[in-house]
Amino acid sequence: MKLHPIDDRVVIKALESETKTKGGIVLPDTAKEKPQRGEVIAVGRGKMLESGKIVEPTLGKGDKVLFGKYAGTEIKVDGVEYTIMRESDVLAKID
Amino acid sequence: MKLHPIDDRVVIKALESETKTKGGIVLPDTAKEKPQRGEVIAVGRGKMLESGKIVEPTLGKGDKVLFGKYAGTEIKVDGVEYTIMRESDVLAKID
Amino acid sequence: MKLHPIDDRVVIKALESETKTKGGIVLPDTAKEKPQRGEVIAVGRGKMLESGKIVEPTLGKGDKVLFGKYAGTEIKVDGVEYTIMRESDVLAKID
Amino acid sequence: MKLHPIDDRVVIKALESETKTKGGIVLPDTAKEKPQRGEVIAVGRGKMLESGKIVEPTLGKGDKVLFGKYAGTEIKVDGVEYTIMRESDVLAKID
Amino acid sequence: MKLHPIDDRVVIKALESETKTKGGIVLPDTAKEKPQRGEVIAVGRGKMLESGKIVEPTLGKGDKVLFGKYAGTEIKVDGVEYTIMRESDVLAKID
Amino acid sequence: MKLHPIDDRVVIKALESETKTKGGIVLPDTAKEKPQRGEVIAVGRGKMLESGKIVEPTLGKGDKVLFGKYAGTEIKVDGVEYTIMRESDVLAKID
Amino acid sequence: MKLHPIDDRVVIKALESETKTKGGIVLPDTAKEKPQRGEVIAVGRGKMLESGKIVEPTLGKGDKVLFGKYAGTEIKVDGVEYTIMRESDVLAKID
Repeated sequence: MKLHPIDDRVVIKALESETKTKGGIVLPDTAKEKPQRGEVIAVGRGKMLESGKIVEPTLGKGDKVLFGKYAGTEIKVDGVEYTIMRESDVLAKID
Repeated sequence: MKLHPIDDRVVIKALESETKTKGGIVLPDTAKEKPQRGEVIAVGRGKMLESGKIVEPTLGKGDKVLFGKYAGTEIKVDGVEYTIMRESDVLAKID
Repeated sequence: MKLHPIDDRVVIKALESETKTKGGIVLPDTAKEKPQRGEVIAVGRGKMLESGKIVEPTLGKGDKVLFGKYAGTEIKVDGVEYTIMRESDVLAKID
Repeated sequence: MKLHPIDDRVVIKALESETKTKGGIVLPDTAKEKPQRGEVIAVGRGKMLESGKIVEPTLGKGDKVLFGKYAGTEIKVDGVEYTIMRESDVLAKID
Repeated sequence: MKLHPIDDRVVIKALESETKTKGGIVLPDTAKEKPQRGEVIAVGRGKMLESGKIVEPTLGKGDKVLFGKYAGTEIKVDGVEYTIMRESDVLAKID
Repeated sequence: MKLHPIDDRVVIKALESETKTKGGIVLPDTAKEKPQRGEVIAVGRGKMLESGKIVEPTLGKGDKVLFGKYAGTEIKVDGVEYTIMRESDVLAKID
Repeated sequence: MKLHPIDDRVVIKALESETKTKGGIVLPDTAKEKPQRGEVIAVGRGKMLESGKIVEPTLGKGDKVLFGKYAGTEIKVDGVEYTIMRESDVLAKID
């Protein structure tokens, strides 16, 4: 199944944070922080300005990004959790 | 009866999520999650920009879409539940 | 008495939902849902854009419409209840 | 004393709703609904658009209008209660 | 000390409401309503439009005005209470 | 250390209100009102309009100003308390 | 790992406030105030105006800045805490 975000939205799949502590202890799920790092799975056509002009997205498929804990909408598709948000709600690209 | 959404609204009919667990157990209604997947039943003429120009909708009848749990307004017409929202509140088209 | 809504407002008279259940039982008032279907009684001259230009309403007198439970302002005129809202708060026209 | 509303405001004097029930019983003040019908006493010069242009008001002195229960600001001048609101908060003109 | 309000603000000195009842009884302070009538003490240079153009204020020093109970910011200067608000928050000029 | 406010912000150092009552009694800190008078220590380059044009600030270093109790952000730099706010949140200049 | 903030965002690394009191006592973490001073680690391409034009950021890598206690989003990358906010939410540059 393919996802086509509307407008300037991006679909992000969270990248799990490290589940081992520095001392090598594997953390249970409840002790893990909500991930704020993810990979862009799909991007929309971009934002429409008041003039009707479309601004191309700056992010692309495969980009690694940071996002806030409360940004976007979480949605499960075929058992996989995604977070969909507007590109302007993404904090930063990382590489 | 035919529905003609106002402006850039779309009428969506929710697609029920799977009511069987992976182990084959049929879930009762109360154990099911609120569906976030639906089919577009009707679209409006599009959004009006401040210039008065109408922007054609990008979604069309029959499109499968994802939407947030709290997006739009639910309304029952002839016993059928619909969710009506602005196109920009739809998260993504799926195919 | 005639009503002339201001700007892009419309005056709607609610159409009572069916008060009989499928089994033919007449429901008391308290068991009825707040109606979300109505008939347009009057429309304003339309919305003014920032340029000062007036955009003609798309709805007209006699149109049947759907609206959200919390949309608009209810007002009683000569003992009759109306709901007055901006055209853009109407969800859809039905026919 | 004369009132000159600022911008696109209008000064409205509420018209008391009927204080007799259909059966002819005079209602005490506490049993009366807050009036939502009034007469326009004064209008401002109109709304200023972002361009600086003034849009003339559509309402005029003497117009009978409907307004929401929570619209505008109530103010007592020389013992008389007025409601002052922007013209766009008036719901409809009646005649 | 002279006050120069910023932008489209006006400085208002409240005019005390009558402290005698119609029957001639002098009311204690706690029984008086918060005044909503005042005199304009100073006006700013006016509102800046998005184009950068300044719109001259319509109110001037000495004007008597009405304002809402919760409008503006109260500030004490040399022991005197003033209310400073944007001109567009003033309800009406009175004369 | 020098402060360069961003955009149309101004840095204000509060001027303590008189700590003696008219009768000459020195008030303890807790009995003093939060000061609402201050001196402008630094100004930014000004506000950017939607056109990208910068509007020069009207306030300058050394100006005495009035501001609301809840305006701006308080920040301590090298042990000194400053309030930083947008110029449009300053109520008035005093001289 | 490199951070590329989206739009007009900046990535800031907090500069710890002094942990010694004037008397030379080292303060434990819980007694320290949340830092409001930081160093800019990375800046985005700038803010997009409604016309689609990009406005270059005024801050650059290495700038020391002040920010409000509740500004921006905190995010941990490789064990280091950063605060990411829009440039317009930064209060002032210091030098």
